[in-house]
Amino acid sequence: MGESKKQVGVLGLGRMGTALAGALLGAGHDVSVWNRSPLKAGPLLDRGARLAATPAEVGSVDVVLSCLSTYDIQQPVLEAAAPKVLVNLTSGTPEQARGVAKWAASEGIDYVDGVIMAVPQGIGTPAAQVLYSGSETVFAAQRDVLEVLGAPVFLGEDAGLAALYDLALLGMMWSTMAGYLHALALVGTEGVTPAQFAPMASAWQSAVGGFLPGIGEQVASGNYETDVSALDINAAGLALLVETSRAQGISPAVPAALQELFDRTVAAGHGSHAIASVIEEIR
Amino acid sequence: MGESKKQVGVLGLGRMGTALAGALLGAGHDVSVWNRSPLKAGPLLDRGARLAATPAEVGSVDVVLSCLSTYDIQQPVLEAAAPKVLVNLTSGTPEQARGVAKWAASEGIDYVDGVIMAVPQGIGTPAAQVLYSGSETVFAAQRDVLEVLGAPVFLGEDAGLAALYDLALLGMMWSTMAGYLHALALVGTEGVTPAQFAPMASAWQSAVGGFLPGIGEQVASGNYETDVSALDINAAGLALLVETSRAQGISPAVPAALQELFDRTVAAGHGSHAIASVIEEIR
Repeated sequence: MGESKKQVGVLGLGRMGTALAGALLGAGHDVSVWNRSPLKAGPLLDRGARLAATPAEVGSVDVVLSCLSTYDIQQPVLEAAAPKVLVNLTSGTPEQARGVAKWAASEGIDYVDGVIMAVPQGIGTPAAQVLYSGSETVFAAQRDVLEVLGAPVFLGEDAGLAALYDLALLGMMWSTMAGYLHALALVGTEGVTPAQFAPMASAWQSAVGGFLPGIGEQVASGNYETDVSALDINAAGLALLVETSRAQGISPAVPAALQELFDRTVAAGHGSHAIASVIEEIR
Repeated sequence: MGESKKQVGVLGLGRMGTALAGALLGAGHDVSVWNRSPLKAGPLLDRGARLAATPAEVGSVDVVLSCLSTYDIQQPVLEAAAPKVLVNLTSGTPEQARGVAKWAASEGIDYVDGVIMAVPQGIGTPAAQVLYSGSETVFAAQRDVLEVLGAPVFLGEDAGLAALYDLALLGMMWSTMAGYLHALALVGTEGVTPAQFAPMASAWQSAVGGFLPGIGEQVASGNYETDVSALDINAAGLALLVETSRAQGISPAVPAALQELFDRTVAAGHGSHAIASVIEEIR
Protein backbone atom coordinates (compact mmCIF):
# COMPACT_ATOMS: atom_id res chain seq x y z
CA MET A 1 0.00 0.00 0.00
CA GLY A 2 3.14 2.22 0.39
CA GLU A 3 2.23 5.77 -0.61
CA SER A 4 -1.46 5.43 0.19
CA LYS A 5 -0.92 4.32 3.77
CA LYS A 6 -3.56 5.94 5.96
CA GLN A 7 -4.42 6.34 9.58
CA VAL A 8 -7.56 4.27 10.03
CA GLY A 9 -9.68 3.96 13.16
CA VAL A 10 -11.90 0.99 13.95
CA LEU A 11 -14.70 1.39 16.51
CA GLY A 12 -15.97 -1.94 17.79
CA LEU A 13 -14.01 -5.19 18.01
CA GLY A 14 -16.62 -7.89 17.68
CA ARG A 15 -15.76 -10.70 15.28
CA MET A 16 -16.32 -8.46 12.28
CA GLY A 17 -14.55 -5.34 13.62
CA THR A 18 -11.56 -7.49 14.59
CA ALA A 19 -11.45 -8.98 11.07
CA LEU A 20 -11.61 -5.49 9.52
CA ALA A 21 -8.79 -4.17 11.71
CA GLY A 22 -6.72 -7.27 10.96
CA ALA A 23 -7.12 -6.85 7.20
CA LEU A 24 -6.15 -3.16 7.45
CA LEU A 25 -3.03 -4.01 9.47
CA GLY A 26 -2.19 -6.68 6.89
CA ALA A 27 -2.37 -4.05 4.16
CA GLY A 28 0.06 -1.79 6.02
CA HIS A 29 -2.32 0.86 7.28
CA ASP A 30 -1.80 2.60 10.59
CA VAL A 31 -4.70 1.25 12.67
CA SER A 32 -6.18 2.59 15.91
CA VAL A 33 -8.82 0.52 17.62
CA TRP A 34 -11.38 1.12 20.34
CA ASN A 35 -13.69 -1.30 22.05
CA ARG A 36 -15.80 -0.99 25.18
CA SER A 37 -13.87 -3.90 26.59
CA PRO A 38 -10.21 -3.29 25.66
CA LEU A 39 -9.32 -6.94 26.36
CA LYS A 40 -10.54 -7.89 22.88
CA ALA A 41 -7.83 -5.78 21.28
CA GLY A 42 -4.94 -7.99 22.46
CA PRO A 43 -4.16 -9.93 19.28
CA LEU A 44 -4.47 -6.75 17.18
CA LEU A 45 -2.04 -4.85 19.44
CA ASP A 46 0.44 -7.69 18.96
CA ARG A 47 0.17 -7.03 15.22
CA GLY A 48 0.86 -3.30 15.58
CA ALA A 49 -2.52 -1.69 16.22
CA ARG A 50 -2.70 1.23 18.63
CA LEU A 51 -5.27 0.98 21.45
CA ALA A 52 -7.39 4.08 21.97
CA ALA A 53 -8.67 4.51 25.53
CA THR A 54 -11.73 6.45 24.31
CA PRO A 55 -13.59 6.87 20.99
CA ALA A 56 -12.30 10.46 20.93
CA GLU A 57 -8.72 9.17 20.71
CA VAL A 58 -9.67 7.30 17.51
CA GLY A 59 -11.56 10.16 15.90
CA SER A 60 -8.59 12.22 14.73
CA VAL A 61 -7.43 9.68 12.11
CA ASP A 62 -7.97 9.94 8.30
CA VAL A 63 -11.01 7.68 8.29
CA VAL A 64 -13.03 5.87 10.96
CA LEU A 65 -14.82 2.56 10.35
CA SER A 66 -17.58 1.90 12.82
CA CYS A 67 -18.76 -1.69 13.38
CA LEU A 68 -20.83 -1.91 16.55
CA SER A 69 -23.62 -4.28 17.49
CA THR A 70 -26.54 -1.83 17.21
CA TYR A 71 -27.24 1.78 16.21
CA ASP A 72 -28.31 2.58 19.77
CA ILE A 73 -24.90 1.58 21.03
CA GLN A 74 -23.19 3.28 18.10
CA GLN A 75 -24.61 6.81 18.28
CA PRO A 76 -22.96 7.99 21.54
CA VAL A 77 -19.69 6.38 20.43
CA LEU A 78 -19.80 8.31 17.13
CA GLU A 79 -20.60 11.54 18.95
CA ALA A 80 -17.61 11.02 21.24
CA ALA A 81 -15.33 10.07 18.35
CA ALA A 82 -16.36 13.07 16.18
CA PRO A 83 -14.50 11.68 13.13
CA LYS A 84 -13.60 13.68 10.01
CA VAL A 85 -14.61 10.83 7.71
CA LEU A 86 -16.98 8.02 8.77
CA VAL A 87 -17.67 4.67 7.13
CA ASN A 88 -20.62 3.18 9.02
CA LEU A 89 -20.55 -0.61 8.90
CA THR A 90 -22.96 -1.24 11.78
CA SER A 91 -25.96 -3.36 10.68
CA GLY A 92 -29.35 -1.74 10.77
CA THR A 93 -32.30 -0.46 8.81
CA PRO A 94 -32.25 2.05 5.94
CA GLU A 95 -33.92 4.58 8.27
CA GLN A 96 -31.15 4.17 10.82
CA ALA A 97 -28.46 4.65 8.18
CA ARG A 98 -30.22 7.77 6.89
CA GLY A 99 -30.42 9.08 10.44
CA VAL A 100 -26.66 8.80 10.92
CA ALA A 101 -26.11 10.37 7.47
CA LYS A 102 -28.23 13.33 8.54
CA TRP A 103 -26.37 13.68 11.82
CA ALA A 104 -23.02 13.42 10.01
CA ALA A 105 -24.05 16.13 7.54
CA SER A 106 -25.07 18.42 10.41
CA GLU A 107 -21.64 17.89 11.98
CA GLY A 108 -19.70 18.35 8.73
CA ILE A 109 -18.56 14.70 8.76
CA ASP A 110 -17.91 13.01 5.40
CA TYR A 111 -20.13 9.93 5.38
CA VAL A 112 -20.66 6.66 3.59
CA ASP A 113 -22.72 3.68 4.76
CA GLY A 114 -21.59 0.13 4.08
CA VAL A 115 -22.77 -3.44 4.54
CA ILE A 116 -20.55 -6.48 4.46
CA MET A 117 -21.91 -9.49 2.55
CA ALA A 118 -19.45 -11.93 4.10
CA VAL A 119 -18.57 -13.68 7.31
CA PRO A 120 -15.57 -12.35 9.30
CA GLN A 121 -13.39 -15.17 7.91
CA GLY A 122 -14.04 -13.84 4.38
CA ILE A 123 -12.82 -10.29 5.07
CA GLY A 124 -9.85 -9.31 2.93
CA THR A 125 -10.73 -11.77 0.15
CA PRO A 126 -12.30 -10.82 -3.20
CA ALA A 127 -15.25 -13.09 -2.36
CA ALA A 128 -16.29 -10.58 0.32
CA GLN A 129 -18.59 -8.08 -1.36
CA VAL A 130 -19.07 -4.85 0.55
CA LEU A 131 -21.92 -2.61 -0.60
CA TYR A 132 -21.81 1.15 -0.06
CA SER A 133 -24.21 4.07 -0.40
CA GLY A 134 -24.13 7.74 0.52
CA SER A 135 -21.49 10.18 -0.72
CA GLU A 136 -19.83 8.87 -3.87
CA THR A 137 -17.03 11.42 -3.38
CA VAL A 138 -16.24 10.01 0.06
CA PHE A 139 -16.48 6.46 -1.32
CA ALA A 140 -13.99 7.32 -4.09
CA ALA A 141 -11.62 9.08 -1.70
CA GLN A 142 -11.57 6.07 0.67
CA ARG A 143 -11.58 3.38 -2.00
CA ASP A 144 -7.97 2.41 -1.23
CA VAL A 145 -8.95 1.56 2.34
CA LEU A 146 -12.28 -0.06 1.40
CA GLU A 147 -10.67 -2.36 -1.16
CA VAL A 148 -8.68 -3.95 1.64
CA LEU A 149 -11.91 -5.22 3.23
CA GLY A 150 -13.44 -6.87 0.15
CA ALA A 151 -14.75 -6.02 -3.30
CA PRO A 152 -16.46 -2.61 -2.96
CA VAL A 153 -19.71 -1.88 -4.84
CA PHE A 154 -21.25 1.62 -4.80
CA LEU A 155 -25.06 1.55 -4.99
CA GLY A 156 -26.14 5.20 -4.98
CA GLU A 157 -26.38 8.47 -3.05
CA ASP A 158 -29.27 7.43 -0.78
CA ALA A 159 -27.43 6.46 2.41
CA GLY A 160 -30.14 3.90 3.19
CA LEU A 161 -29.60 1.83 0.02
CA ALA A 162 -26.78 -0.35 1.35
CA ALA A 163 -28.86 -1.32 4.40
CA LEU A 164 -31.84 -2.05 2.14
CA TYR A 165 -29.77 -4.35 -0.10
CA ASP A 166 -28.27 -5.98 3.00
CA LEU A 167 -31.65 -6.87 4.48
CA ALA A 168 -32.99 -8.01 1.10
CA LEU A 169 -30.00 -10.29 0.48
CA LEU A 170 -29.95 -11.64 4.03
CA GLY A 171 -33.67 -12.34 3.71
CA MET A 172 -32.88 -14.52 0.68
CA MET A 173 -30.31 -16.37 2.77
CA TRP A 174 -32.63 -16.93 5.73
CA SER A 175 -35.40 -18.18 3.44
CA THR A 176 -33.08 -20.57 1.62
CA MET A 177 -31.56 -21.88 4.86
CA ALA A 178 -34.95 -22.31 6.53
CA GLY A 179 -36.22 -24.16 3.45
CA TYR A 180 -33.20 -26.46 3.56
CA LEU A 181 -33.56 -27.11 7.30
CA HIS A 182 -37.25 -27.92 6.81
CA ALA A 183 -36.30 -30.34 4.01
CA LEU A 184 -33.65 -32.03 6.19
CA ALA A 185 -36.15 -32.35 9.04
CA LEU A 186 -38.78 -33.81 6.70
CA VAL A 187 -36.62 -36.48 5.05
CA GLY A 188 -35.05 -37.11 8.47
CA THR A 189 -38.41 -38.41 9.73
CA GLU A 190 -37.87 -41.45 7.49
CA GLY A 191 -34.25 -41.90 8.53
CA VAL A 192 -32.70 -40.12 5.52
CA THR A 193 -29.45 -38.51 6.70
CA PRO A 194 -28.15 -35.08 5.60
CA ALA A 195 -25.29 -36.88 3.83
CA GLN A 196 -27.77 -38.96 1.81
CA PHE A 197 -29.94 -35.95 0.99
CA ALA A 198 -27.16 -33.41 0.32
CA PRO A 199 -26.09 -34.40 -3.22
CA MET A 200 -29.64 -34.21 -4.55
CA ALA A 201 -30.37 -31.06 -2.57
CA SER A 202 -27.24 -29.27 -3.85
CA ALA A 203 -27.97 -30.14 -7.48
CA TRP A 204 -31.57 -29.03 -7.04
CA GLN A 205 -30.63 -25.83 -5.20
CA SER A 206 -28.38 -24.80 -8.05
CA ALA A 207 -31.14 -25.57 -10.58
CA VAL A 208 -33.46 -23.36 -8.51
CA GLY A 209 -30.83 -20.59 -8.50
CA GLY A 210 -31.04 -20.75 -12.29
CA PHE A 211 -34.78 -19.91 -12.13
CA LEU A 212 -34.21 -16.57 -10.37
CA PRO A 213 -33.21 -14.44 -13.40
CA GLY A 214 -36.39 -15.54 -15.22
CA ILE A 215 -38.46 -14.61 -12.15
CA GLY A 216 -36.79 -11.19 -12.15
CA GLU A 217 -37.71 -10.69 -15.81
CA GLN A 218 -41.34 -11.60 -15.14
CA VAL A 219 -41.47 -9.16 -12.23
CA ALA A 220 -39.86 -6.41 -14.32
CA SER A 221 -42.32 -6.89 -17.19
CA GLY A 222 -45.39 -7.53 -15.04
CA ASN A 223 -46.20 -10.35 -17.49
CA TYR A 224 -46.83 -13.50 -15.45
CA GLU A 225 -48.01 -15.77 -18.28
CA THR A 226 -46.44 -19.21 -17.99
CA ASP A 227 -46.43 -22.50 -19.84
CA VAL A 228 -44.11 -24.07 -17.30
CA SER A 229 -45.63 -24.20 -13.83
CA ALA A 230 -48.77 -22.38 -12.70
CA LEU A 231 -49.18 -20.91 -9.22
CA ASP A 232 -52.29 -22.97 -8.38
CA ILE A 233 -50.37 -26.23 -8.87
CA ASN A 234 -47.58 -24.93 -6.64
CA ALA A 235 -50.08 -23.75 -4.01
CA ALA A 236 -51.62 -27.25 -4.05
CA GLY A 237 -48.12 -28.68 -3.65
CA LEU A 238 -47.50 -26.42 -0.65
CA ALA A 239 -50.72 -27.70 0.91
CA LEU A 240 -49.43 -31.28 0.48
CA LEU A 241 -46.11 -30.26 2.06
CA VAL A 242 -47.86 -28.71 5.06
CA GLU A 243 -50.09 -31.79 5.43
CA THR A 244 -47.12 -34.16 5.12
CA SER A 245 -45.01 -32.14 7.57
CA ARG A 246 -47.80 -32.49 10.14
CA ALA A 247 -48.30 -36.19 9.33
CA GLN A 248 -44.57 -36.82 9.81
CA GLY A 249 -44.63 -34.99 13.14
CA ILE A 250 -42.58 -31.88 12.32
CA SER A 251 -43.51 -28.20 12.47
CA PRO A 252 -45.14 -26.93 9.27
CA ALA A 253 -44.16 -23.32 10.15
CA VAL A 254 -41.93 -22.66 7.12
CA PRO A 255 -44.25 -24.00 4.38
CA ALA A 256 -47.44 -22.88 6.16
CA ALA A 257 -46.45 -19.21 5.90
CA LEU A 258 -45.71 -19.66 2.20
CA GLN A 259 -48.93 -21.57 1.65
CA GLU A 260 -50.94 -18.70 3.09
CA LEU A 261 -49.13 -16.23 0.83
CA PHE A 262 -49.53 -18.40 -2.29
CA ASP A 263 -53.21 -19.05 -1.50
CA ARG A 264 -53.87 -15.33 -1.14
CA THR A 265 -52.20 -14.74 -4.52
CA VAL A 266 -54.33 -17.45 -6.13
CA ALA A 267 -57.44 -15.90 -4.54
CA ALA A 268 -56.44 -12.55 -6.08
CA GLY A 269 -56.74 -14.16 -9.51
CA HIS A 270 -53.18 -15.34 -10.24
CA GLY A 271 -53.85 -19.11 -10.16
CA SER A 272 -52.88 -19.66 -13.79
CA HIS A 273 -49.93 -17.26 -13.58
CA ALA A 274 -46.30 -17.95 -12.76
CA ILE A 275 -44.99 -18.11 -9.17
CA ALA A 276 -43.45 -14.66 -9.76
CA SER A 277 -46.96 -13.19 -9.42
CA VAL A 278 -46.68 -13.76 -5.64
CA ILE A 279 -44.79 -10.44 -5.55
CA GLU A 280 -48.12 -8.71 -6.24
CA GLU A 281 -49.35 -9.97 -2.88
CA ILE A 282 -46.10 -9.02 -1.08
CA ARG A 283 -46.16 -5.41 -2.22
CA MET B 1 -33.71 -48.27 -28.64
CA GLY B 2 -34.20 -51.12 -31.19
CA GLU B 3 -34.41 -54.44 -29.33
CA SER B 4 -35.75 -52.91 -26.11
CA LYS B 5 -38.76 -51.25 -27.71
CA LYS B 6 -41.76 -51.59 -25.41
CA GLN B 7 -45.45 -50.94 -25.39
CA VAL B 8 -45.90 -48.05 -22.96
CA GLY B 9 -49.16 -46.52 -21.80
CA VAL B 10 -49.52 -42.97 -20.51
CA LEU B 11 -52.54 -42.04 -18.40
CA GLY B 12 -53.09 -38.28 -18.24
CA LEU B 13 -52.06 -35.72 -20.84
CA GLY B 14 -51.49 -32.57 -18.86
CA ARG B 15 -48.30 -30.67 -19.70
CA MET B 16 -46.18 -33.28 -17.94
CA GLY B 17 -47.98 -36.37 -19.30
CA THR B 18 -47.76 -34.96 -22.82
CA ALA B 19 -44.02 -34.35 -22.38
CA LEU B 20 -43.53 -37.92 -21.10
CA ALA B 21 -45.44 -39.45 -24.03
CA GLY B 22 -43.50 -37.24 -26.47
CA ALA B 23 -40.14 -38.35 -25.08
CA LEU B 24 -41.18 -42.02 -25.25
CA LEU B 25 -42.30 -41.62 -28.88
CA GLY B 26 -38.98 -39.90 -29.63
CA ALA B 27 -37.14 -42.91 -28.23
CA GLY B 28 -39.06 -45.29 -30.49
CA HIS B 29 -41.41 -46.87 -27.99
CA ASP B 30 -44.93 -47.93 -28.93
CA VAL B 31 -47.04 -45.43 -26.98
CA SER B 32 -50.74 -45.59 -26.07
CA VAL B 33 -52.28 -42.54 -24.42
CA TRP B 34 -55.47 -41.86 -22.54
CA ASN B 35 -56.86 -38.57 -21.30
CA ARG B 36 -60.31 -37.61 -20.01
CA SER B 37 -60.49 -35.08 -22.81
CA PRO B 38 -59.10 -36.86 -25.93
CA LEU B 39 -58.60 -33.53 -27.73
CA LYS B 40 -55.28 -33.05 -25.92
CA ALA B 41 -53.85 -36.12 -27.65
CA GLY B 42 -53.84 -34.57 -31.14
CA PRO B 43 -50.15 -33.66 -31.50
CA LEU B 44 -49.09 -37.00 -30.01
CA LEU B 45 -51.31 -38.96 -32.46
CA ASP B 46 -49.63 -37.07 -35.31
CA ARG B 47 -46.32 -38.41 -33.99
CA GLY B 48 -47.56 -42.03 -33.94
CA ALA B 49 -49.19 -42.48 -30.54
CA ARG B 50 -52.31 -44.65 -30.33
CA LEU B 51 -55.39 -43.13 -28.63
CA ALA B 52 -57.11 -45.34 -26.10
CA ALA B 53 -60.80 -44.64 -25.65
CA THR B 54 -60.75 -45.89 -22.04
CA PRO B 55 -58.07 -46.51 -19.38
CA ALA B 56 -58.75 -50.24 -19.81
CA GLU B 57 -57.52 -50.05 -23.43
CA VAL B 58 -54.16 -48.73 -22.16
CA GLY B 59 -53.78 -51.25 -19.36
CA SER B 60 -52.66 -54.23 -21.43
CA VAL B 61 -49.28 -52.73 -22.44
CA ASP B 62 -45.86 -53.65 -20.94
CA VAL B 63 -45.80 -50.70 -18.54
CA VAL B 64 -48.19 -47.89 -17.67
CA LEU B 65 -47.06 -44.43 -16.55
CA SER B 66 -49.72 -42.53 -14.66
CA CYS B 67 -49.50 -38.74 -14.46
CA LEU B 68 -52.81 -37.27 -13.31
CA SER B 69 -53.56 -34.10 -11.41
CA THR B 70 -54.49 -35.68 -8.06
CA TYR B 71 -54.64 -39.07 -6.37
CA ASP B 72 -58.43 -38.78 -6.06
CA ILE B 73 -58.73 -38.48 -9.82
CA GLN B 74 -56.12 -41.17 -10.36
CA GLN B 75 -57.49 -44.05 -8.30
CA PRO B 76 -60.59 -44.92 -10.41
CA VAL B 77 -58.49 -44.52 -13.57
CA LEU B 78 -55.93 -47.00 -12.24
CA GLU B 79 -58.68 -49.43 -11.24
CA ALA B 80 -60.16 -49.26 -14.73
CA ALA B 81 -56.74 -49.61 -16.39
CA ALA B 82 -55.68 -52.61 -14.24
CA PRO B 83 -52.09 -52.47 -15.56
CA LYS B 84 -49.53 -55.26 -15.22
CA VAL B 85 -46.75 -52.80 -14.31
CA LEU B 86 -47.43 -49.32 -12.93
CA VAL B 87 -45.11 -46.33 -12.60
CA ASN B 88 -47.01 -43.74 -10.57
CA LEU B 89 -45.86 -40.20 -11.43
CA THR B 90 -48.86 -38.35 -9.99
CA SER B 91 -47.81 -35.80 -7.34
CA GLY B 92 -48.94 -36.40 -3.80
CA THR B 93 -47.96 -37.24 -0.27
CA PRO B 94 -45.91 -40.23 0.92
CA GLU B 95 -49.10 -41.65 2.49
CA GLN B 96 -50.91 -41.45 -0.85
CA ALA B 97 -48.04 -43.19 -2.64
CA ARG B 98 -47.99 -45.92 0.00
CA GLY B 99 -51.75 -46.32 -0.40
CA VAL B 100 -51.43 -46.97 -4.12
CA ALA B 101 -48.50 -49.33 -3.47
CA LYS B 102 -50.71 -51.32 -1.09
CA TRP B 103 -53.56 -51.42 -3.57
CA ALA B 104 -51.16 -52.48 -6.36
CA ALA B 105 -49.76 -55.28 -4.18
CA SER B 106 -53.27 -56.53 -3.45
CA GLU B 107 -54.00 -56.61 -7.20
CA GLY B 108 -50.69 -58.27 -8.12
CA ILE B 109 -49.50 -55.16 -10.00
CA ASP B 110 -45.76 -54.47 -10.15
CA TYR B 111 -45.33 -50.99 -8.71
CA VAL B 112 -42.85 -48.17 -8.48
CA ASP B 113 -43.51 -44.56 -7.45
CA GLY B 114 -41.71 -41.69 -9.14
CA VAL B 115 -41.40 -37.91 -8.89
CA ILE B 116 -40.09 -35.67 -11.63
CA MET B 117 -37.74 -32.89 -10.51
CA ALA B 118 -38.10 -30.94 -13.75
CA VAL B 119 -40.51 -28.83 -15.74
CA PRO B 120 -42.19 -30.47 -18.76
CA GLN B 121 -39.73 -28.71 -21.09
CA GLY B 122 -36.85 -30.53 -19.35
CA ILE B 123 -38.24 -34.04 -19.90
CA GLY B 124 -35.95 -36.23 -22.00
CA THR B 125 -32.82 -34.28 -21.01
CA PRO B 126 -30.20 -35.47 -18.50
CA ALA B 127 -30.93 -32.35 -16.39
CA ALA B 128 -34.32 -33.86 -15.53
CA GLN B 129 -33.81 -35.94 -12.40
CA VAL B 130 -36.57 -38.44 -11.72
CA LEU B 131 -36.59 -40.03 -8.27
CA TYR B 132 -38.11 -43.48 -7.70
CA SER B 133 -39.00 -45.64 -4.72
CA GLY B 134 -40.86 -48.93 -4.24
CA SER B 135 -39.86 -52.19 -5.89
CA GLU B 136 -36.22 -52.10 -6.97
CA THR B 137 -36.86 -55.14 -9.19
CA VAL B 138 -39.59 -53.28 -11.08
CA PHE B 139 -37.38 -50.19 -11.29
CA ALA B 140 -34.52 -52.23 -12.78
CA ALA B 141 -36.83 -54.01 -15.24
CA GLN B 142 -38.25 -50.70 -16.51
CA ARG B 143 -35.00 -48.73 -16.41
CA ASP B 144 -34.81 -48.62 -20.23
CA VAL B 145 -38.14 -46.80 -20.34
CA LEU B 146 -37.44 -44.59 -17.32
CA GLU B 147 -34.09 -43.42 -18.71
CA VAL B 148 -35.96 -41.85 -21.61
CA LEU B 149 -37.70 -39.44 -19.22
CA GLY B 150 -34.62 -38.16 -17.41
CA ALA B 151 -31.81 -39.33 -15.12
CA PRO B 152 -33.38 -42.01 -12.86
CA VAL B 153 -32.38 -42.24 -9.17
CA PHE B 154 -33.64 -45.10 -6.98
CA LEU B 155 -34.14 -44.06 -3.34
CA GLY B 156 -35.35 -47.19 -1.53
CA GLU B 157 -38.08 -49.77 -1.07
CA ASP B 158 -40.49 -47.53 0.90
CA ALA B 159 -42.90 -46.43 -1.84
CA GLY B 160 -43.44 -43.11 -0.01
CA LEU B 161 -39.79 -42.01 -0.19
CA ALA B 162 -39.94 -40.45 -3.65
CA ALA B 163 -42.94 -38.31 -2.63
CA LEU B 164 -41.15 -37.32 0.58
CA TYR B 165 -38.04 -36.19 -1.33
CA ASP B 166 -40.26 -34.41 -3.85
CA LEU B 167 -42.01 -32.33 -1.20
CA ALA B 168 -38.75 -31.65 0.64
CA LEU B 169 -37.01 -30.43 -2.54
CA LEU B 170 -40.01 -28.42 -3.74
CA GLY B 171 -40.19 -26.83 -0.28
CA MET B 172 -36.59 -25.65 -0.76
CA MET B 173 -37.61 -24.16 -4.11
CA TRP B 174 -40.68 -22.38 -2.73
CA SER B 175 -38.67 -20.95 0.17
CA THR B 176 -35.90 -19.72 -2.11
CA MET B 177 -38.34 -18.21 -4.60
CA ALA B 178 -40.40 -16.52 -1.89
CA GLY B 179 -37.22 -15.12 -0.34
CA TYR B 180 -36.19 -13.74 -3.73
CA LEU B 181 -39.60 -12.22 -4.43
CA HIS B 182 -39.57 -10.58 -1.00
CA ALA B 183 -36.11 -9.16 -1.74
CA LEU B 184 -37.26 -7.83 -5.14
CA ALA B 185 -40.31 -6.24 -3.52
CA LEU B 186 -38.17 -4.66 -0.79
CA VAL B 187 -35.52 -3.08 -3.02
CA GLY B 188 -38.30 -2.18 -5.45
CA THR B 189 -39.74 0.20 -2.86
CA GLU B 190 -36.71 2.43 -3.49
CA GLY B 191 -36.92 2.10 -7.26
CA VAL B 192 -34.27 -0.62 -7.62
CA THR B 193 -35.24 -2.76 -10.63
CA PRO B 194 -34.90 -6.57 -10.85
CA ALA B 195 -32.24 -6.02 -13.54
CA GLN B 196 -30.20 -3.85 -11.16
CA PHE B 197 -30.61 -6.26 -8.26
CA ALA B 198 -30.17 -9.54 -10.18
CA PRO B 199 -26.36 -9.66 -10.55
CA MET B 200 -25.79 -9.17 -6.85
CA ALA B 201 -28.63 -11.52 -5.95
CA SER B 202 -27.35 -14.30 -8.20
CA ALA B 203 -23.80 -14.07 -6.85
CA TRP B 204 -25.15 -14.05 -3.31
CA GLN B 205 -27.58 -16.91 -3.93
CA SER B 206 -24.78 -19.09 -5.17
CA ALA B 207 -22.66 -18.18 -2.12
CA VAL B 208 -25.62 -19.18 0.05
CA GLY B 209 -25.91 -22.49 -1.84
CA GLY B 210 -22.32 -23.11 -0.77
CA PHE B 211 -23.35 -22.83 2.90
CA LEU B 212 -25.80 -25.76 2.68
CA PRO B 213 -23.34 -28.68 2.90
CA GLY B 214 -21.89 -27.19 6.10
CA ILE B 215 -25.40 -26.85 7.54
CA GLY B 216 -26.03 -30.51 6.69
CA GLU B 217 -22.86 -31.51 8.54
CA GLN B 218 -23.89 -29.54 11.62
CA VAL B 219 -27.33 -31.18 11.58
CA ALA B 220 -25.78 -34.63 11.14
CA SER B 221 -23.38 -34.14 14.05
CA GLY B 222 -25.80 -32.26 16.31
CA ASN B 223 -22.88 -29.92 17.06
CA TYR B 224 -24.07 -26.36 16.50
CA GLU B 225 -21.00 -24.53 17.79
CA THR B 226 -20.06 -21.63 15.50
CA ASP B 227 -17.45 -18.94 15.24
CA VAL B 228 -19.02 -17.53 12.07
CA SER B 229 -22.52 -16.27 12.67
CA ALA B 230 -24.64 -16.90 15.76
CA LEU B 231 -28.40 -17.42 15.65
CA ASP B 232 -29.19 -14.48 17.96
CA ILE B 233 -27.51 -12.03 15.56
CA ASN B 234 -29.48 -13.52 12.65
CA ALA B 235 -32.72 -13.39 14.64
CA ALA B 236 -32.04 -9.70 15.35
CA GLY B 237 -31.41 -9.20 11.63
CA LEU B 238 -34.74 -10.85 10.82
CA ALA B 239 -36.45 -8.45 13.23
CA LEU B 240 -34.86 -5.53 11.33
CA LEU B 241 -36.03 -7.03 8.02
CA VAL B 242 -39.60 -7.37 9.30
CA GLU B 243 -39.51 -3.80 10.65
CA THR B 244 -38.06 -2.43 7.41
CA SER B 245 -40.55 -4.37 5.27
CA ARG B 246 -43.39 -2.74 7.21
CA ALA B 247 -41.73 0.69 7.08
CA GLN B 248 -41.33 0.38 3.30
CA GLY B 249 -45.00 -0.62 2.96
CA ILE B 250 -44.68 -4.26 1.89
CA SER B 251 -45.97 -7.44 3.53
CA PRO B 252 -43.57 -8.88 6.11
CA ALA B 253 -45.20 -12.33 5.74
CA VAL B 254 -42.11 -14.19 4.50
CA PRO B 255 -39.56 -12.93 7.06
CA ALA B 256 -42.12 -12.73 9.90
CA ALA B 257 -42.67 -16.50 9.80
CA LEU B 258 -38.92 -17.07 9.90
CA GLN B 259 -38.45 -14.53 12.67
CA GLU B 260 -40.95 -16.38 14.86
CA LEU B 261 -39.15 -19.67 14.20
CA PHE B 262 -35.68 -18.19 14.86
CA ASP B 263 -36.92 -16.42 18.01
CA ARG B 264 -38.38 -19.68 19.35
CA THR B 265 -35.04 -21.40 18.70
CA VAL B 266 -33.17 -18.62 20.53
CA ALA B 267 -35.65 -18.90 23.42
CA ALA B 268 -34.91 -22.65 23.56
CA GLY B 269 -31.27 -21.79 24.32
CA HIS B 270 -29.64 -21.80 20.89
CA GLY B 271 -28.82 -18.07 20.67
CA SER B 272 -25.07 -18.59 20.52
CA HIS B 273 -25.38 -21.58 18.19
CA ALA B 274 -25.34 -21.75 14.39
CA ILE B 275 -28.45 -21.17 12.26
CA ALA B 276 -28.53 -24.95 11.68
CA SER B 277 -29.87 -25.30 15.24
CA VAL B 278 -33.26 -24.04 13.95
CA ILE B 279 -33.91 -27.65 12.87
CA GLU B 280 -34.30 -28.52 16.56
CA GLU B 281 -37.36 -26.28 16.65
CA ILE B 282 -38.74 -27.66 13.35
CA ARG B 283 -38.65 -31.27 14.47
